[in-house]
Amino acid sequence: MKLDSVIVRFGGEIGIKGEWTRRSYERLLSKNIEKFLTHHNTNFEQIVRQRGRIYIKTNKAREAASRVTRVFGVSSASPATVTISDINSMTEQAVGFADAALKDKDSFAIRCRRVGKHPYSSMDVCRKVGKQILAQLKDRNIKVDLNDPEFLLGIEIRGDQAYIFVETYRGMDGLPLGSQAKVVCLLSEGMDSPVACWLAMKRGCPIVPLHFDNTPFSDEAATKKAFEIAEKLFEWSIGFPRRICVVPHGKNLETLVRESPRRLTCILCKRIMYRISKRIAETERAEGIMTGEAIGEQASQTLHNLRILNEAVNGYPVHRPILTFNKRETERLARKISTFEISARRSSGCSAASKRPTTKAKFKDVKRAEQELDIEAMIDESVEQTKAFSI
Amino acid sequence: MKLDSVIVRFGGEIGIKGEWTRRSYERLLSKNIEKFLTHHNTNFEQIVRQRGRIYIKTNKAREAASRVTRVFGVSSASPATVTISDINSMTEQAVGFADAALKDKDSFAIRCRRVGKHPYSSMDVCRKVGKQILAQLKDRNIKVDLNDPEFLLGIEIRGDQAYIFVETYRGMDGLPLGSQAKVVCLLSEGMDSPVACWLAMKRGCPIVPLHFDNTPFSDEAATKKAFEIAEKLFEWSIGFPRRICVVPHGKNLETLVRESPRRLTCILCKRIMYRISKRIAETERAEGIMTGEAIGEQASQTLHNLRILNEAVNGYPVHRPILTFNKRETERLARKISTFEISARRSSGCSAASKRPTTKAKFKDVKRAEQELDIEAMIDESVEQTKAFSI
Repeated sequence: MKLDSVIVRFGGEIGIKGEWTRRSYERLLSKNIEKFLTHHNTNFEQIVRQRGRIYIKTNKAREAASRVTRVFGVSSASPATVTISDINSMTEQAVGFADAALKDKDSFAIRCRRVGKHPYSSMDVCRKVGKQILAQLKDRNIKVDLNDPEFLLGIEIRGDQAYIFVETYRGMDGLPLGSQAKVVCLLSEGMDSPVACWLAMKRGCPIVPLHFDNTPFSDEAATKKAFEIAEKLFEWSIGFPRRICVVPHGKNLETLVRESPRRLTCILCKRIMYRISKRIAETERAEGIMTGEAIGEQASQTLHNLRILNEAVNGYPVHRPILTFNKRETERLARKISTFEISARRSSGCSAASKRPTTKAKFKDVKRAEQELDIEAMIDESVEQTKAFSI
Repeated sequence: MKLDSVIVRFGGEIGIKGEWTRRSYERLLSKNIEKFLTHHNTNFEQIVRQRGRIYIKTNKAREAASRVTRVFGVSSASPATVTISDINSMTEQAVGFADAALKDKDSFAIRCRRVGKHPYSSMDVCRKVGKQILAQLKDRNIKVDLNDPEFLLGIEIRGDQAYIFVETYRGMDGLPLGSQAKVVCLLSEGMDSPVACWLAMKRGCPIVPLHFDNTPFSDEAATKKAFEIAEKLFEWSIGFPRRICVVPHGKNLETLVRESPRRLTCILCKRIMYRISKRIAETERAEGIMTGEAIGEQASQTLHNLRILNEAVNGYPVHRPILTFNKRETERLARKISTFEISARRSSGCSAASKRPTTKAKFKDVKRAEQELDIEAMIDESVEQTKAFSI
């Protein structure tokens, strides 16, 4: 069978939005798909947007279907053959599909969905097509099995067109990238923050990764890893800016290690990171900071300490997409988005971290330590020296 | 084979903690397991804590193993038979297991883990036991298949004891309940907030659910549903307080609907809810508020509006465990924790919600609207009239 189209579905979540929102999401999704296919040199003739569906006309239907499963907002995609929605044409095409796919003793079922006015019901189509397949392939001993068929033939009828398909690839769901506000994401070289970045994008937020360069407390490999991770992440955001900001933070750490209680180093460090991030977020007109923190993952990430961290930016939103993830869940996602291998590679880690960090810092100790420092000057200098790289 | 023990594993996450934390987590987990089994009348003789493992001595090994998979922090559990770690005793027991389980032409493999000093290596044990099984069951045509065996026999040796097992039940992972600070959780009757509550518990946080009673803008069924949901949730927190707080919020909503711009109703409502929650959290000595908000899920949940919401409590942490979940992911979890059916039941919803809520409220409009209201008095009254129910 010659495949010439792709059916793109976007599941329940976009469908239940109000009319205006739904349309603008569908438009955005269609545009994102177009950019994605163009970027990957996957030829297509046309992308047709209809209520609740996008159809791609292409002679590379399998490749295109597989590609679009990586566009956020797509719930599934099927390479298909299009025909006119006349019952004889559909039957002819469907029999062709069955003929190519069904082997001796295989079972099959037909599912039909129909939008528009037609002289037949969906059930009529299933019956007619099923009968014809059984008749034409009767020497193969095939049979109908509605519950657990080896071969599932789909027929999707929209007005005067019908799409016949047998394969469905699962997408990522989520919301179309760009449908939500931009966010600034802390990006280290570790396992967690890339997953948090990806989850933000999955729910429609374009990201600006911020990497804090801790040299001399970490080696250059860390920054190199963060760049490689950013490249992997940007594969999910074709058509959006590919910028990573590198914030010099080593000097701040030197000051903290020298002048503040060691048990507070990580807390004070993060509070400065948050403040810098907030400044950059404001310049970028972003709507919040995303981090890869998870409850209890490290001493600085107890709920108590997260509260101390939050207070540094005073109500400015710090979002934590993997707050309640288990390590295993985070690693599973890291594998899926291809950052696992990079993060798992050895690097020195941050040598400024205390051996005995506090899990329950006191506000008054933190405040006192910060009063001894010229926090504002530290932030100013780091923000000033932050460099954005297009990658 | 007579099963008389359960091996309880708690995965990598607790194992990599510092010595002190690890031990206190293991102790807590052991205590939570004890409460769980006692609550369910699952008899046991003893719970033995060893580094990286907990062993339960019980004549209801299968039931106990299945129960403990619902204790947070447990990554897996196996009903087992204990014997002395002498190679002949282990072999005898292992052959008994194999004899009971292996059918004609089945394949098997043996996995051995060993902690302590023994006159044999793990490999020796596998070889000896394997050989013996092949010899004793030779009329069944069984064979060894290390990659994909139909039957996997585990031998776990600890000092002078050995545990033989064939089944492993998967747990929830997470952190032992009570290892992290308490949180206050907004709990409506909907699909999302119960999942957020459960995720907080999964990462070790005892919860105090807060239910906002919106009558006359919602019907009594809503509160009834919330109570039923809370009961389901508390099944996961045996041994911890089972309290739900009900906050009268209908009067506040009446004021908002009457006196404030309708497009802002949901935003203003939530800002009041946050402030009330913060007050209650402080009384409860909790460390934050958890909500079931997800980016873009509703008009009030755009990133922009979340920022406006956060600002109401001024840096006090509002955590959103399902921030980047897709609807499908949330529903899958809701099914797993048995709240899906309750949330899916029809109820009236909140009739105070505007038909055209803003997705991008302006700070100045929100501030102006709030200045027209006596917010503090509204909060005071609601907090004062909040009732805690033990269920």
